[in-house]
Amino acid sequence: MNRLTETARGVYVIAVTPFLPDGGLDLESTDRMVDFYLSVGATGLTVLGMMGEAQKLTIGESQLIVRRILARVAGRVPVVVGVSAPGFAQMASLTEMVMDDGAAGVMIAPPSSLRTDDQIVAYYAQAVGFIKDVPFVVQDFPLVTGVQMSVPVIRRIVADLPTCVCLKHEDWPGLDKISALRADGFLNRRISILCGNGGMFLPEEMARGADGAMTGFAYPEMMVDVVRHTDAGEAERAQDLFDAYLPLARYEQQPGIGLAVRKYTMAKRGIIAHASLRRPGPGLNERTIAEVDRLIRRQERRLRELT
Amino acid sequence: MNRLTETARGVYVIAVTPFLPDGGLDLESTDRMVDFYLSVGATGLTVLGMMGEAQKLTIGESQLIVRRILARVAGRVPVVVGVSAPGFAQMASLTEMVMDDGAAGVMIAPPSSLRTDDQIVAYYAQAVGFIKDVPFVVQDFPLVTGVQMSVPVIRRIVADLPTCVCLKHEDWPGLDKISALRADGFLNRRISILCGNGGMFLPEEMARGADGAMTGFAYPEMMVDVVRHTDAGEAERAQDLFDAYLPLARYEQQPGIGLAVRKYTMAKRGIIAHASLRRPGPGLNERTIAEVDRLIRRQERRLRELT
Amino acid sequence: MNRLTETARGVYVIAVTPFLPDGGLDLESTDRMVDFYLSVGATGLTVLGMMGEAQKLTIGESQLIVRRILARVAGRVPVVVGVSAPGFAQMASLTEMVMDDGAAGVMIAPPSSLRTDDQIVAYYAQAVGFIKDVPFVVQDFPLVTGVQMSVPVIRRIVADLPTCVCLKHEDWPGLDKISALRADGFLNRRISILCGNGGMFLPEEMARGADGAMTGFAYPEMMVDVVRHTDAGEAERAQDLFDAYLPLARYEQQPGIGLAVRKYTMAKRGIIAHASLRRPGPGLNERTIAEVDRLIRRQERRLRELT
Amino acid sequence: MNRLTETARGVYVIAVTPFLPDGGLDLESTDRMVDFYLSVGATGLTVLGMMGEAQKLTIGESQLIVRRILARVAGRVPVVVGVSAPGFAQMASLTEMVMDDGAAGVMIAPPSSLRTDDQIVAYYAQAVGFIKDVPFVVQDFPLVTGVQMSVPVIRRIVADLPTCVCLKHEDWPGLDKISALRADGFLNRRISILCGNGGMFLPEEMARGADGAMTGFAYPEMMVDVVRHTDAGEAERAQDLFDAYLPLARYEQQPGIGLAVRKYTMAKRGIIAHASLRRPGPGLNERTIAEVDRLIRRQERRLRELT
Repeated sequence: MNRLTETARGVYVIAVTPFLPDGGLDLESTDRMVDFYLSVGATGLTVLGMMGEAQKLTIGESQLIVRRILARVAGRVPVVVGVSAPGFAQMASLTEMVMDDGAAGVMIAPPSSLRTDDQIVAYYAQAVGFIKDVPFVVQDFPLVTGVQMSVPVIRRIVADLPTCVCLKHEDWPGLDKISALRADGFLNRRISILCGNGGMFLPEEMARGADGAMTGFAYPEMMVDVVRHTDAGEAERAQDLFDAYLPLARYEQQPGIGLAVRKYTMAKRGIIAHASLRRPGPGLNERTIAEVDRLIRRQERRLRELT
Repeated sequence: MNRLTETARGVYVIAVTPFLPDGGLDLESTDRMVDFYLSVGATGLTVLGMMGEAQKLTIGESQLIVRRILARVAGRVPVVVGVSAPGFAQMASLTEMVMDDGAAGVMIAPPSSLRTDDQIVAYYAQAVGFIKDVPFVVQDFPLVTGVQMSVPVIRRIVADLPTCVCLKHEDWPGLDKISALRADGFLNRRISILCGNGGMFLPEEMARGADGAMTGFAYPEMMVDVVRHTDAGEAERAQDLFDAYLPLARYEQQPGIGLAVRKYTMAKRGIIAHASLRRPGPGLNERTIAEVDRLIRRQERRLRELT
Repeated sequence: MNRLTETARGVYVIAVTPFLPDGGLDLESTDRMVDFYLSVGATGLTVLGMMGEAQKLTIGESQLIVRRILARVAGRVPVVVGVSAPGFAQMASLTEMVMDDGAAGVMIAPPSSLRTDDQIVAYYAQAVGFIKDVPFVVQDFPLVTGVQMSVPVIRRIVADLPTCVCLKHEDWPGLDKISALRADGFLNRRISILCGNGGMFLPEEMARGADGAMTGFAYPEMMVDVVRHTDAGEAERAQDLFDAYLPLARYEQQPGIGLAVRKYTMAKRGIIAHASLRRPGPGLNERTIAEVDRLIRRQERRLRELT
Repeated sequence: MNRLTETARGVYVIAVTPFLPDGGLDLESTDRMVDFYLSVGATGLTVLGMMGEAQKLTIGESQLIVRRILARVAGRVPVVVGVSAPGFAQMASLTEMVMDDGAAGVMIAPPSSLRTDDQIVAYYAQAVGFIKDVPFVVQDFPLVTGVQMSVPVIRRIVADLPTCVCLKHEDWPGLDKISALRADGFLNRRISILCGNGGMFLPEEMARGADGAMTGFAYPEMMVDVVRHTDAGEAERAQDLFDAYLPLARYEQQPGIGLAVRKYTMAKRGIIAHASLRRPGPGLNERTIAEVDRLIRRQERRLRELT
């Protein structure tokens, strides 16, 4: 039960991994973060994603953090775990571990060596050979992976692999991709489409047929609001709120320091205790902090105008 | 006279290249576009940039469009011409051609094969061997070129090559890069820093010490406003206006269709006659057009609120 | 007449571009080089290829060198011209120019931005829209272009575009690719397959169904010998000769200095007057020259043993 | 004791990982392979390298295979273990594990995201912060990693990090790089340089000052012979033997199927029981096998001529 299905909707927040200033895991903050995400309306969580500093964890730490999150969530929402790995043996062993612990499904990004359509389709088929009947999310994030999945490729994956239940859509440009995938009869069955890119295109994505977001932002309530108002037919209201958060969302999307900005904001909000990234990771200088603080102040003011 | 110098400031708009629906050059629209850019306060123009579809023109067409623009500008502002080329012979011959015609300087992006610091520095030194004493802009745009120029590399280029007068700063993240380059004594002389990325970070860039923007957006008045208000010490007003344009600016930054969105908007505004891109280039579907129209309507409303 | 067709066979030597020590075109050496290539058995020539320093020439110089070579060849063998360009307008104008001058066809490499199967097929279809009915060679060289063309992609190009008459096969690994393309009925028609990579796999490529080579090596007689002996059913003799040249062929395949090694050897053999590459291009230091000289001496000794 | 030092010399064979046909580890073959490598003169072994299918192993399997090899080697030669990982926590934990088990040092390749000189130097400094005083090999393999380390960068690493004892040199072109690193006083201390690329340039590399090879080939005796005869001042004899193996070495260097060719040959020689690669990995078709068999027959004949 609580397995991820093609009906996944709403906001699956990509969870950060809280660290102590000395680089150790901050498990208390992890609990508080989970509580916060659920309190603002997250309908799911995704852990060990690219923005979760997964690659900086040992296998043991990965399991520890996943278990802690699963325990705290306690089945209230599905939890997806990123299991992308250089090889299938590692992917399979991590998948088995987290599914045994209660995860709802896994997420798999294609390795950057893939180029041709056939290579991409074959890769996911091979992956399924290893993870068996575990439901999975295809992560389509060409800016980082370098792998471009055309809509015919996604169609083949969906047709061939029944356990593919969701697309984490993070292509750029991607709006027409959503429309193509949602065109009548293009896919042989409907899958969930949850969008990334920090929510930077969420109003348009929802209008095109996305089911929600699977991404991170220090104010996940923005994404929850956009989804809720869109579902209620209040597109202008959705966009008004979106616009209020956009200056900060834009700032948080800067490659290299975006995650540090997000953690700083989350710490400032009291969601986690420390803004620390595990080494190697950038700290924020005073200048950057002042810019973030200013954007938060302006955002709060604008949100008050909109209430 | 009218040579580009390290005092370049304000907004150097990256000009689009107007085409007729059949793919021919639309020279009448070119004139109108120039008039428009100058009327809203552009302090310079940059032609044959990446967003000018330069790579789709023959050499003859490149010269034709540059001449037309130079004739229309008639010395009122400096005109910079992009001369990046696979080899130095082509770069040198295009440079000679446009400087003879009255350009103020040229812009050079590094070829994507460059990797090490020494390779990048050597490339610009070799380029100067070919373009001689023509002032040039270093285009630092790693997202497209794949070449990462560290601040020590830029320092070496500035120190070694006196004809380097300007950095077109389009790195991401780039705010700390501006601060580093502006730190007392880091460079052996002050050069102009004009920023790109469609103006998406212009308020912060100005605050960090940039001299303005060298980029495109269907509403260049946004960039002019941000620079003007920042210079007048009205940072909040600058940001208010910026925020109003941000939803559309964000939409225009989508790789792949961004230029088509910009040309559509410019045609809608009556600045150019046709939204056409030269083949191969995407057209906009009805869905996209509706999204742009909606963002423009919302932008106009928000701007009215701010007056 | 003398248009390139799908019957192309033998050795199409990729011609170098001879330069004077001051960087000017060495047209006298160009004539001598053409005479040499034909005297050793070249069945065609390819000019303005990647190893022809094409990107260092102005348009005017490109036309000059192509004309000189066409005049010297005087219709004795077909001449293919590389017309890869950042945009189709340039490609079309260069194609028109060289076909008017008497070229037999053109060669087109895919731009490195292409990723998906559909993008690659669309690119060649668009190119044909510009070069019209001119026969063309698809250059499949992923190591340099970064574009991987799967066999289904090549099949689609061959099926869709009747003017595609030849594949310059330079993939690595590529032997199974040749076998796949030569499998009964896989392509809807037979095209010529000429192989690259400096001939480093020519014996195996011929055995797999290639029609010959389209590449460069300072001793093109090696490739002529391999093709001739293979055609005569003397595979062991072909391989014996191949093996004798292999140590030098290997040395010439070093990225970065390979072309300089080739020109040095050609100058030493008296085929061209100067080993010069146009700037920027590496010169050879004494150490490298000594290594090449030693390999040539050993090669000559081994060839004598084999006569 | 038996720690890797800057005096490393000879042939450090990159060990394959033997698998059973069902994908399980073949530990008996592992023992036989170790015995074989040592019997032909390997002066060291490197395990979990790129050609060891390291990325297909779970952490547990990695430890198992390293332990088995260390036990069989029993201190007779130093064993280097590849510990490259997406994050430092994993690198540190694998390093600690294998050093406890008796490894002599570790090898670290730079992640493909690194571009600028400073980034590369900083990466190795950070790595040392995690692996502490463990001696390490810098793996310089730009064809695979995409990271180009200039000689100034290597100089900085050697100067800054005393535990850097060896460069696995696999750049292409690389001969001048060896000469530059061996120039009097260029480095502040002499480190070991062991070369890769399947030994394809070993005679020239030894002449330039390399200390040997750290790479794989189904006939490591070739590399042992080249090193031995070069050390004995018998460069022509070294090259004669090298030339005899070159046709097969070339064939084994094909990306994609090279490792399968190597394992096939090793199984044919009786060194390992099965040619199997773990999934996903290519099998060899009959055509390829016939080509390899033919090259082996020719190689044996040529070696007999040379005795």
